[in-house]
Amino acid sequence: MSDAATTDLYEVTMALSYLRERMTQPATFSCFVRDLPPGRAFLVAAGLESALDFLAGFHVGAADIDTFAETLRRPAADLAPLRDLRFTGEVRAVPEGHVVLAGEPLLEITAPLPQAQLVETFVLNQLSHQTAIAAKCARCVIAARGRPVVDFSLRRTHGTAAGYQAARLGAMAGFAGTSNVAAARAEHLTAVGTMAHSYIEAFEDEAAAFTAFARSHPGPVTFLVDTYDTESGVAVAARVLRDLGRADGSAIRLDSGDLGALAVRARAVLDEAGLPGVRIVASGGLDEFALDDLTAAGAPIDVYAVGTRIGVSADAPYLDSAYKLVEYDGRPVMKLSSAKVTAPGRKQVFRRPGCADVIGLADEPPPADGVPLLETVMRDGVRTGPPGRLPDAARRLAADLAQLPETARSIRSPTPVRASFSGPLTDLAARVRHRIEHRARGAATPPGDSRRSAPQPPRHTP
Amino acid sequence: MSDAATTDLYEVTMALSYLRERMTQPATFSCFVRDLPPGRAFLVAAGLESALDFLAGFHVGAADIDTFAETLRRPAADLAPLRDLRFTGEVRAVPEGHVVLAGEPLLEITAPLPQAQLVETFVLNQLSHQTAIAAKCARCVIAARGRPVVDFSLRRTHGTAAGYQAARLGAMAGFAGTSNVAAARAEHLTAVGTMAHSYIEAFEDEAAAFTAFARSHPGPVTFLVDTYDTESGVAVAARVLRDLGRADGSAIRLDSGDLGALAVRARAVLDEAGLPGVRIVASGGLDEFALDDLTAAGAPIDVYAVGTRIGVSADAPYLDSAYKLVEYDGRPVMKLSSAKVTAPGRKQVFRRPGCADVIGLADEPPPADGVPLLETVMRDGVRTGPPGRLPDAARRLAADLAQLPETARSIRSPTPVRASFSGPLTDLAARVRHRIEHRARGAATPPGDSRRSAPQPPRHTP
Repeated sequence: MSDAATTDLYEVTMALSYLRERMTQPATFSCFVRDLPPGRAFLVAAGLESALDFLAGFHVGAADIDTFAETLRRPAADLAPLRDLRFTGEVRAVPEGHVVLAGEPLLEITAPLPQAQLVETFVLNQLSHQTAIAAKCARCVIAARGRPVVDFSLRRTHGTAAGYQAARLGAMAGFAGTSNVAAARAEHLTAVGTMAHSYIEAFEDEAAAFTAFARSHPGPVTFLVDTYDTESGVAVAARVLRDLGRADGSAIRLDSGDLGALAVRARAVLDEAGLPGVRIVASGGLDEFALDDLTAAGAPIDVYAVGTRIGVSADAPYLDSAYKLVEYDGRPVMKLSSAKVTAPGRKQVFRRPGCADVIGLADEPPPADGVPLLETVMRDGVRTGPPGRLPDAARRLAADLAQLPETARSIRSPTPVRASFSGPLTDLAARVRHRIEHRARGAATPPGDSRRSAPQPPRHTP
Repeated sequence: MSDAATTDLYEVTMALSYLRERMTQPATFSCFVRDLPPGRAFLVAAGLESALDFLAGFHVGAADIDTFAETLRRPAADLAPLRDLRFTGEVRAVPEGHVVLAGEPLLEITAPLPQAQLVETFVLNQLSHQTAIAAKCARCVIAARGRPVVDFSLRRTHGTAAGYQAARLGAMAGFAGTSNVAAARAEHLTAVGTMAHSYIEAFEDEAAAFTAFARSHPGPVTFLVDTYDTESGVAVAARVLRDLGRADGSAIRLDSGDLGALAVRARAVLDEAGLPGVRIVASGGLDEFALDDLTAAGAPIDVYAVGTRIGVSADAPYLDSAYKLVEYDGRPVMKLSSAKVTAPGRKQVFRRPGCADVIGLADEPPPADGVPLLETVMRDGVRTGPPGRLPDAARRLAADLAQLPETARSIRSPTPVRASFSGPLTDLAARVRHRIEHRARGAATPPGDSRRSAPQPPRHTP
């Protein structure tokens, strides 16, 4: 089964109807996050590369037609209009790694209406999930204040594909490594990890376990010291490292208890043993809040290993993302239902210094100090260039984080940066709202008349 | 790349060391959830089928050896001992769908130590993620009090594979359908869904959109009525359904606003239009808390569509799951580090009426009123029977939910059911703890002496 069937059923029913009605003119859909979750002051654009892979390979094949027919309980002949449909549209998008704000389009697709509709679910899934995790990872890097952060999340992400993405998105945010072997290989990341508690328990005691580990692994090693009693575990580790002459580049790992206090005691034990170069790795339920506390307290921790809470973005595991029709056949459209108003028209985001962004229309001139964020990344269903590279995304993110206001970078109760609407976008929203409301009152819109009204900008407007 | 590289690096380093030390005797690892997240009073065993698929196909091939060598920065020759390793062990597990409690093993693997270690990450990932989502789905079914619940989560799950699982786990919990086409086809579920707001907006007005939809889709239809103004949308839908004679089995969908109040008004409009048979579907940010409120208030909603918050288990997106060594080469082991004490030995869960479970040792006799939950599902690396069927899991879950105490079924502030430890397990834990603590004091364990001590049961013991 191709990815074309990885979709919500309504995309198929709508596409069929559009085709029957000959509604195949160009439609533009805009993908954005309406409101940020509590505790988030910015997001990080991510998911574009996998969305583009999906679009480039999109094809409704014979197996998909069978699937659609069976799930709709209709004869396969009814589905024939969808057969061999491919994606032939244009994609304009924010390259991965850029900081993005509420209401800013991450991506806009312009394609014949049935195509643009059919790809909604998959594209929204990729952008929404990855953008959420990337923002969480970026917060960890901010909280660590320069100390290395590594990813240990694979065991509790929502499936192993999500674990792969967590490793990749951590690297985008600047993580120094990942425990995820497959992701490390495929994305050229540094793989990290040495031993679990089970390893210690399988031996008669800690000294035997550490010694055996060093025997089979040349170079620096990291000994896990909290299986039984942390302080005595550190002492045993120090003795083994010294006796074997393996201290150079090696570390101990704390995985439970009061990590800050234990790190202080472990540091003292290591220093007294003449091993000031042996580093301390901390893990176990860490997230950006814990990292912030530990770094603020000056805990002598050299490496933070974050896992579960980052891999699932535990405090904000989803985003209020949307994929909304903003223009069809040259006509700007918008939705007015309560709390979900959308702004009409094809858009652009102009990044001004300090991320004081302006959301405008795609064809309006940029403000003097604004740089357009959305780039044309696909045309006629084909990528306009090679796939984006992870190191480039990492550089974009580092540069954007550096210009974010401190209040947005803060870990606790951060203040979201808010984009404003340009004059032309505000005017267009007013005109479209007027047209819809006028129509609702049962009258035909007088030509030109709608241009004079000036209703409020959409509620989601920051 | 095979699934063998979908693992944490430390599984590989540990396995290599075990092989070098000739530590290939049988080890038993137990997978369980230490403590339940706030707001959960029970879990639902899930993920076993995909874990068994992984174990049955586990094979360290040439590509995996290359991956291990590259990520460890060691010559491929060093990895040779792992080449062609397969899983040849035994798996005892709770069949999918059973209610499980904190501390109860979901699964126990007994295999040569390197094998049992290497499979940890993948197995833990599957059980942990799926068990979390299944419990969330079960809570929705309880809250809906008999009204149908359907799954709309695919667009915001953590990747599309997680979306597939959400659809499957919803069905396990008793959901009536899913929007997920691929999952519906593969798992023989009812696919549901008709139109999005974009569909309405692509037409000149709602009446044109509804009429066109009915034209291309015979049979019952569901019209989305909240694109502009909900009450007038309902009126338009009623008129189109009546004019076209398509009311039979059809519905309207509310997706925003105060769903309870809007449903009351929509019901009135439909009834006044002589359409008492047209049903009301509600969606938009729903979870078990909203369903509980709506059903308690008697909202005239006929079908609940839940999505994002269920697909990511938003209030509890991960579980405090563990995969712990409990026995090696016939020697029971346990971990004593703070807050993460584990109980030693191969175990069994005896289900007593009302889920008043007893966790005991695998070889002890069941209590008179207790039925063992863990079954042998794999032996010598081969499944002992055909894959578990989803309808069977659904039946198990329905039966177990029916015997859960009301206090555990309650949606707000439920009271967890707590399993107790059997006498033999309590005794074993005391003996092993004594052995470890005695060893830590530097003395050899006097034969037989350890059996007389009786320390507290492990902290996680419910």
